[in-house]
Amino acid sequence: MATREPEIIRNKQQMRNWSRSMRAQGKTIGLVPTMGYLHQGHLSLITEAQKHTQLIVVSIYVNPGQFSANEDLSTYPSDFQGDIEKLKSIPNGVDVVFNPQNLYDYGVERERSGGNKREKEGGIVSCLEDEGRGGIGHETWIRVERLEKGMCGKSRPVFFRGVATVVAKLFNIVEPDVAVFGKKDYQQWRIIQRMVRDLDFAVKVIGSEMIRDEDGLAMSSRNVHLSPQERGQALSISRSLFEAKSAAKRGITVCSELRRSVIESIEAAGGKIDYIEIVDQETLEAVEEMKSGVVLCVAAWFGKVRLIDNMEIHV
Amino acid sequence: MATREPEIIRNKQQMRNWSRSMRAQGKTIGLVPTMGYLHQGHLSLITEAQKHTQLIVVSIYVNPGQFSANEDLSTYPSDFQGDIEKLKSIPNGVDVVFNPQNLYDYGVERERSGGNKREKEGGIVSCLEDEGRGGIGHETWIRVERLEKGMCGKSRPVFFRGVATVVAKLFNIVEPDVAVFGKKDYQQWRIIQRMVRDLDFAVKVIGSEMIRDEDGLAMSSRNVHLSPQERGQALSISRSLFEAKSAAKRGITVCSELRRSVIESIEAAGGKIDYIEIVDQETLEAVEEMKSGVVLCVAAWFGKVRLIDNMEIHV
Repeated sequence: MATREPEIIRNKQQMRNWSRSMRAQGKTIGLVPTMGYLHQGHLSLITEAQKHTQLIVVSIYVNPGQFSANEDLSTYPSDFQGDIEKLKSIPNGVDVVFNPQNLYDYGVERERSGGNKREKEGGIVSCLEDEGRGGIGHETWIRVERLEKGMCGKSRPVFFRGVATVVAKLFNIVEPDVAVFGKKDYQQWRIIQRMVRDLDFAVKVIGSEMIRDEDGLAMSSRNVHLSPQERGQALSISRSLFEAKSAAKRGITVCSELRRSVIESIEAAGGKIDYIEIVDQETLEAVEEMKSGVVLCVAAWFGKVRLIDNMEIHV
Repeated sequence: MATREPEIIRNKQQMRNWSRSMRAQGKTIGLVPTMGYLHQGHLSLITEAQKHTQLIVVSIYVNPGQFSANEDLSTYPSDFQGDIEKLKSIPNGVDVVFNPQNLYDYGVERERSGGNKREKEGGIVSCLEDEGRGGIGHETWIRVERLEKGMCGKSRPVFFRGVATVVAKLFNIVEPDVAVFGKKDYQQWRIIQRMVRDLDFAVKVIGSEMIRDEDGLAMSSRNVHLSPQERGQALSISRSLFEAKSAAKRGITVCSELRRSVIESIEAAGGKIDYIEIVDQETLEAVEEMKSGVVLCVAAWFGKVRLIDNMEIHV
């Protein structure tokens, strides 16, 4: 099948102009936000988006706003050319790759800044409030105050603030009709849904099912950092999730029991637990008795790699 | 001159549909957000908006999200029919009055709520995080973290969070090209400008000059609560601001001196100072030596009424 070259846009205004000219022609636009280093999971989001809109924009942008100083921003994997090749391989391809250099550069930094590296990068922000900028750096953050607190929010206090904020920026730049997020990042998906409802964004948010490798490992750009041994150990995550699901179906409804068995399997395999939670699928509030519409969420470390996974359970 | 009946829209989706149908016809849209009880100050914002766009939407909505529990939400003045008459009196009039009943009602409250009054009002929020709602109430807030802290933010800790959030909602519902805010609410104007920049809203924000009554009092819907005596005392605010401005022009550049004289005049007249600050017009950071591009901001109580005023100073 003939492959299709996506148009690559790096400028905010050009991106918005493209979207508006397409909308003026009555076209609908789907957005798939990514941080690049694309894998089958990302491609499945695009295939999902193609079901809903005529045109597809894939954003590739590693968002500094969602990393805190001690996290892996600098080592986050990237392969732009490889990403473009993968996008060309998708049936019907995609229309635009939006690949901005820095979404936090408002063009006012250099004038007033002392010109140190951080300021040359132009308004890039960390978890900390931006000091010593003469008060002109990025300072607006969207907080989804309840949903952002638990699970990944505990160990990554600025993560969801940064995600919600950059997604709002992308919505305002791309102006999509539909945006697709992976349910692999379950809490993120629910936070974006809530933000869209609460701020009245005219965007339909779709959660797309997680994609697993044949061995069961949830696909993630970070898997590339796993040694072969760690990867083998990491399979304990999906294995224990499937076990918990069937245990629940068999009638084990006490969540503390189900959690304990997941913890034991992952630790036995050499993983270090960040959290294991069984929560309501919408409110993400912990449940004690297994019921319909819950999700079992896991975050665990294998070596230097933090992996997340989850399993929706209906009993 | 023939008066023009504005179309009154109360539903979010109808409002967005109207804007999109107009944009599809190539029309530009200006938004003037208000809380109603309109006065000459509001009308001047509309006249300003008319210079920039072909169509004008005036929103009339008292936003509960920006009042804390102990503030004057319940006594905030309102006169919808009077407002409509005033809008009809404006040359060329306005096209739409957007008057939603409750922008925080997402239609999910009743199902799951215990049905107490607060919930019957549907997701209306206060300064406190929304408890006991089963986690489905409004919980998304936009924080402009540096600009929101000072001045009015000190005595009204949730005010700017609520303002920024409701303005973002209005932008997403009305999708205007231009929005006009009064420089009478100086800190609010700067916060909205910063939010629009930081979140990449495709809206041009215009600050419109303050309108004063002939006696010098800055126009405000709250002035109606002043007794004749309090109103006379409140003139000390504008008088002391004009005096400070001319003093600065005469070469008094020590801000502490200028502040002291304003404090003395207002207190001598029987006012209770909330704050007097001389700040940079963009960053709102306090300045000690008078320079060009500062603004002197005042908030003071007369009886039960809190009034704000300000004066831009260029020396």
